[in-house]
Amino acid sequence: MSHNTFGHLFRITTWGESHGPAIGCVVDGCPPLVPLTEADIQPWLDLRKPGGSRFVTQRQEADRVRILSGVFDDGNGPVTTGTPISLMIENTDQRSKDYGEIARAFRPGHADYAYQAKYGVRDHRGGGRSSARETASRVAAGAVARKVLGDGVRIRAGVVQLGPHRIPDEAIDFDAVYDNPLFAASAEVVPAWEAYLDGVRKAGSSIGAVVALEVTGVPAGWGAPLYAKLDAELASGLMSINAVKGVEIGAGFAAAELSGEDNADEMRLGDDGLPVFLSNRAGGVLGGVSTGQPVTARVAFKPTSSILTLRQTIDRDGQEVDLRTKGRHDPCVALRGVPVVEAMAAIVLADAKLRHRAQIG
Amino acid sequence: MSHNTFGHLFRITTWGESHGPAIGCVVDGCPPLVPLTEADIQPWLDLRKPGGSRFVTQRQEADRVRILSGVFDDGNGPVTTGTPISLMIENTDQRSKDYGEIARAFRPGHADYAYQAKYGVRDHRGGGRSSARETASRVAAGAVARKVLGDGVRIRAGVVQLGPHRIPDEAIDFDAVYDNPLFAASAEVVPAWEAYLDGVRKAGSSIGAVVALEVTGVPAGWGAPLYAKLDAELASGLMSINAVKGVEIGAGFAAAELSGEDNADEMRLGDDGLPVFLSNRAGGVLGGVSTGQPVTARVAFKPTSSILTLRQTIDRDGQEVDLRTKGRHDPCVALRGVPVVEAMAAIVLADAKLRHRAQIG
Amino acid sequence: MSHNTFGHLFRITTWGESHGPAIGCVVDGCPPLVPLTEADIQPWLDLRKPGGSRFVTQRQEADRVRILSGVFDDGNGPVTTGTPISLMIENTDQRSKDYGEIARAFRPGHADYAYQAKYGVRDHRGGGRSSARETASRVAAGAVARKVLGDGVRIRAGVVQLGPHRIPDEAIDFDAVYDNPLFAASAEVVPAWEAYLDGVRKAGSSIGAVVALEVTGVPAGWGAPLYAKLDAELASGLMSINAVKGVEIGAGFAAAELSGEDNADEMRLGDDGLPVFLSNRAGGVLGGVSTGQPVTARVAFKPTSSILTLRQTIDRDGQEVDLRTKGRHDPCVALRGVPVVEAMAAIVLADAKLRHRAQIG
Amino acid sequence: MSHNTFGHLFRITTWGESHGPAIGCVVDGCPPLVPLTEADIQPWLDLRKPGGSRFVTQRQEADRVRILSGVFDDGNGPVTTGTPISLMIENTDQRSKDYGEIARAFRPGHADYAYQAKYGVRDHRGGGRSSARETASRVAAGAVARKVLGDGVRIRAGVVQLGPHRIPDEAIDFDAVYDNPLFAASAEVVPAWEAYLDGVRKAGSSIGAVVALEVTGVPAGWGAPLYAKLDAELASGLMSINAVKGVEIGAGFAAAELSGEDNADEMRLGDDGLPVFLSNRAGGVLGGVSTGQPVTARVAFKPTSSILTLRQTIDRDGQEVDLRTKGRHDPCVALRGVPVVEAMAAIVLADAKLRHRAQIG
Repeated sequence: MSHNTFGHLFRITTWGESHGPAIGCVVDGCPPLVPLTEADIQPWLDLRKPGGSRFVTQRQEADRVRILSGVFDDGNGPVTTGTPISLMIENTDQRSKDYGEIARAFRPGHADYAYQAKYGVRDHRGGGRSSARETASRVAAGAVARKVLGDGVRIRAGVVQLGPHRIPDEAIDFDAVYDNPLFAASAEVVPAWEAYLDGVRKAGSSIGAVVALEVTGVPAGWGAPLYAKLDAELASGLMSINAVKGVEIGAGFAAAELSGEDNADEMRLGDDGLPVFLSNRAGGVLGGVSTGQPVTARVAFKPTSSILTLRQTIDRDGQEVDLRTKGRHDPCVALRGVPVVEAMAAIVLADAKLRHRAQIG
Repeated sequence: MSHNTFGHLFRITTWGESHGPAIGCVVDGCPPLVPLTEADIQPWLDLRKPGGSRFVTQRQEADRVRILSGVFDDGNGPVTTGTPISLMIENTDQRSKDYGEIARAFRPGHADYAYQAKYGVRDHRGGGRSSARETASRVAAGAVARKVLGDGVRIRAGVVQLGPHRIPDEAIDFDAVYDNPLFAASAEVVPAWEAYLDGVRKAGSSIGAVVALEVTGVPAGWGAPLYAKLDAELASGLMSINAVKGVEIGAGFAAAELSGEDNADEMRLGDDGLPVFLSNRAGGVLGGVSTGQPVTARVAFKPTSSILTLRQTIDRDGQEVDLRTKGRHDPCVALRGVPVVEAMAAIVLADAKLRHRAQIG
Repeated sequence: MSHNTFGHLFRITTWGESHGPAIGCVVDGCPPLVPLTEADIQPWLDLRKPGGSRFVTQRQEADRVRILSGVFDDGNGPVTTGTPISLMIENTDQRSKDYGEIARAFRPGHADYAYQAKYGVRDHRGGGRSSARETASRVAAGAVARKVLGDGVRIRAGVVQLGPHRIPDEAIDFDAVYDNPLFAASAEVVPAWEAYLDGVRKAGSSIGAVVALEVTGVPAGWGAPLYAKLDAELASGLMSINAVKGVEIGAGFAAAELSGEDNADEMRLGDDGLPVFLSNRAGGVLGGVSTGQPVTARVAFKPTSSILTLRQTIDRDGQEVDLRTKGRHDPCVALRGVPVVEAMAAIVLADAKLRHRAQIG
Repeated sequence: MSHNTFGHLFRITTWGESHGPAIGCVVDGCPPLVPLTEADIQPWLDLRKPGGSRFVTQRQEADRVRILSGVFDDGNGPVTTGTPISLMIENTDQRSKDYGEIARAFRPGHADYAYQAKYGVRDHRGGGRSSARETASRVAAGAVARKVLGDGVRIRAGVVQLGPHRIPDEAIDFDAVYDNPLFAASAEVVPAWEAYLDGVRKAGSSIGAVVALEVTGVPAGWGAPLYAKLDAELASGLMSINAVKGVEIGAGFAAAELSGEDNADEMRLGDDGLPVFLSNRAGGVLGGVSTGQPVTARVAFKPTSSILTLRQTIDRDGQEVDLRTKGRHDPCVALRGVPVVEAMAAIVLADAKLRHRAQIG
């Protein structure tokens, strides 16, 4: 993808730094006549919003979205007009003093050194452009993408592994996700996971996690071989999320241990004349094109790099220093990553829907 | 990415079907004055070529590449001119009769049904456009990309897991890869793996595998946050390879089990004033930008879907049928995937190099 | 170009409607460490600003630009950071009531019917997205592009024909442009042109014009054949400006009457070893690539379509109606088009500079 | 546009040099199930083919096109499959010796110097990549675009001005174009124009010309404001043709002399409920979107720069030299430009059709 733009026909361009006056997003290529108000977007932002529980950063942001363009009410309620939709979220709780000590030192595991090496300058305040705060723009754009996809396409994600603790595949319940502060895809694991994550948090440490994604209602035919394959676009979109280090489609890495007999999903014929697949190792994508099965993926998040333990690093002046990253951080960045994973899936799929319609009609 | 084009400034556009007269590739945006002849490309194609051992398809293809444009000898040997480089490989061993019986039935695990559902037509001969034969074009283009990167950037890949058999991280030896017919990243495992894969092959079955990638010599600063992150582009490029179902950067899914202390790579200062990282969990990429460490990734390949066992499926006429996929197939498609993984990494990095140079100078 | 984005490496994405809360622009791909403040942008906006004389719309807009991202002061003054620069201009004088009567009728010569036919909805207030108000975003982005180009590249434009009145080529003086309210490229014509345009204005009519462009300091080599030719990109950028109906490079349409002897610019050698061209019929571009000569173009603007005369048209209800377009309009839209032509030239050239650097180094 | 690719959804990527083994084109994004054989393409190439009359270059090229991919016959005749269509035309009459003397000297008016300055190398044989021979690829791709547009969209062009000789607007007759060797849009002018052009040819000189374009059957709604405006895309596509120096839409430069009353096309209602425009100053495009009127444009071609008169120039060694460009040249390059103008219009419109369908459905 190009710079800060993601998508080909349904395109988002995001801007803004963690501690600047605002962040935002231009959603371009949206079809016209889609009913849209700020109330369609805000609930998704509220899910990702900081300060919601003791398991996420205590930064207080209202994360109120404003629609600045692209929507018009011609008497039948506000609808998209087919022109760019500009979304803006003001930053209100930028305590830049929190970050003063990291202006010169490069925080291990963060983008600090890489940005400085590339650009020769970086907005160090709260991580600047590399802050996960940018993902609020993705979530806002994702809400628009969901409207483009319609209710028939259902996108759900949840935490299925927290550090060493995994939810067995057969116990995954996406309905549980937004009913617990851990975004866990199972109500049962919540008490134990809360205790575990409290320990991590109190130790000033952090932990990684895995988020699973399942999208139902995607018809057969979306995706454009060979380099715009649906799975390749999903991989691109999901890997672009802060802290993500791995993406699997369907059986993913487990497919490496499967035989051809166990891996290839057999087909029978359904009553509606569409195929019924007897399994879903493929994750709903074959040859880069959707098959009509649920699209499934798993995304690995690394642990938050901001921890209280003293760490060895270097600074801009070429000195070796030891650094402790104070501030307001998530003990597990993957939790608030759940709505972001959903949003990126929505954006990829809305784009795929329009691209498919373009070529096939 | 767009349709059949990959890359932004260093761009490849591939074309061709498994059983058409030829396949090929247009490499556009290549810098001028890069020495280039067919002899620079052919050795990489020979590595990927079918028919090289009993572990790969017995299709006999010379895979001779021709350069049709973009190279000119002005007296000092052939060099690129900055104009499009057209590469063509003729198909010479298309036994279409082998595939006659699959013209109507959809092979489980293949793109057959998805293509038919999308396009309403498909070239079924040998998988047509969805055949892994297309990857020859990638390998040819990758050879050009390597020339753009220069000798300082070293790209190596190898099989590190074959079905259930894994090479321990500390035993991985990329120097061994092209000295054994399994492209295994360890000479030691070869006898056992050969025996194992012979068993798979003789059973008419297939098995998945994992390919590891390591690129050294990438300077700090390549990659363009946020949606052209180097790791997102790698994920897109690698996931677009036939049969790939998962991509990890650095620690990948293992990062989900790491604490912040164990994951974030600490830094000390080297004699050259550049940082020395004390570990490489990041896989050489932070915030989407290279750090100067080796860029590392792992890629999961599913098993070949063409197997001799009878499988349940449906056909274009809406009938349930049982199908046995005869033909000449790889028992483990990941083996010949090794040069393809290297090629896609080369293409992503050559593009990143040019994009970095554009913005930074 | 794609939707509302122009440029490949130096890219602008604009958003906003004439009577929405604001308009704006995201400038992406800007090199880092370019000194930039709002004071670098505001003067160019002031040149284009409405309300400046009796010859332009009397809408009162301060057109104050705000930089919302992408600039950081690390102690040595604000510089670009290489991340997206979000620019916003609030709309303050949207008298929507002025436009109430055109909510249903399609104004002849305007985009009203075409937008309605395409989208099934349009923001009719002041022309909505199709209003020339959007060009303020281009001018703001153009100011950033000028900084990327540096002082060595000098971009100047001016009105050289107002209706039937032309400035002879040899009398064109770009230094005069911003010293007269007509943006005329000659001080001498101003009194006569003022009298002429006063007549047009008082009659409630409007008139077309031609704007000439000259860019000096472009080195040889910019532009990327074949489809990213510098002249093709200029044509795309200039033709995208509201009301533009024609673009010429160099001799332009006059070249159709020239012989090969008169058209091809001969070369002698300058003291600096660079060619000295004996004429500039080519307009500084050969084969789509700059030659080092001044890049010259001419742009035809149609007359403002909003006039006081009663005109025949139809409305959304399928009725034939007669319409008089009241409101606050420019009698010659080309006047304020002068800074817009300069801005688009700056954007095209900044993009060409980065693209050239990418491929050639 | 990017490098050697034109179009967004319907995309062409061309390659090849004048004196290389072949030239060609990859057409990507074509909808599936479009009947297509080489016989659909060849007639258009034959129109552009060199050697057809004494008014065009005497180079003898069969210009036989081969389809190498993307078309499949599943029993009902060959149709597109939605995958890339690779088209190749072999070069058969490359007399490189003709061009030996220009290997070092830069021909005035040609791309020679600009390419050398940009790339540091150029294929000088027959102009290499900058040769108008490349336009054969455009014509081949245009033939595919026409099939995508269908018979309802009729694209016609013709020469309307040859040097100083113009066909009055009211006498333009596109039906005459392919019945005379001058591609003149009027049978009446042919004898006089032949005599005139014979004079030019015998003098070893050349002359410019203007080609008019008219496309009927484009429905209202195509084009994507703001930077993918239909007129901006046409301007980009037409200006990218070799030797083109100017592009007008509708009234074009004449609009600069029109009043608002004379320029804005009034509307009445037709029997079919669609508007009937009372004039077509707009050239069928308002606000960048088609209105349903014929899309009209005019394109200015400069004279061929290869002439027999001795001209002053410089060479690669930094010497001033005098050069006479021998070889086989067109006395008026615009003649064979007629099918190229049509082809680029077809490509722009096919792309616009798909983009419109993507967003609007």
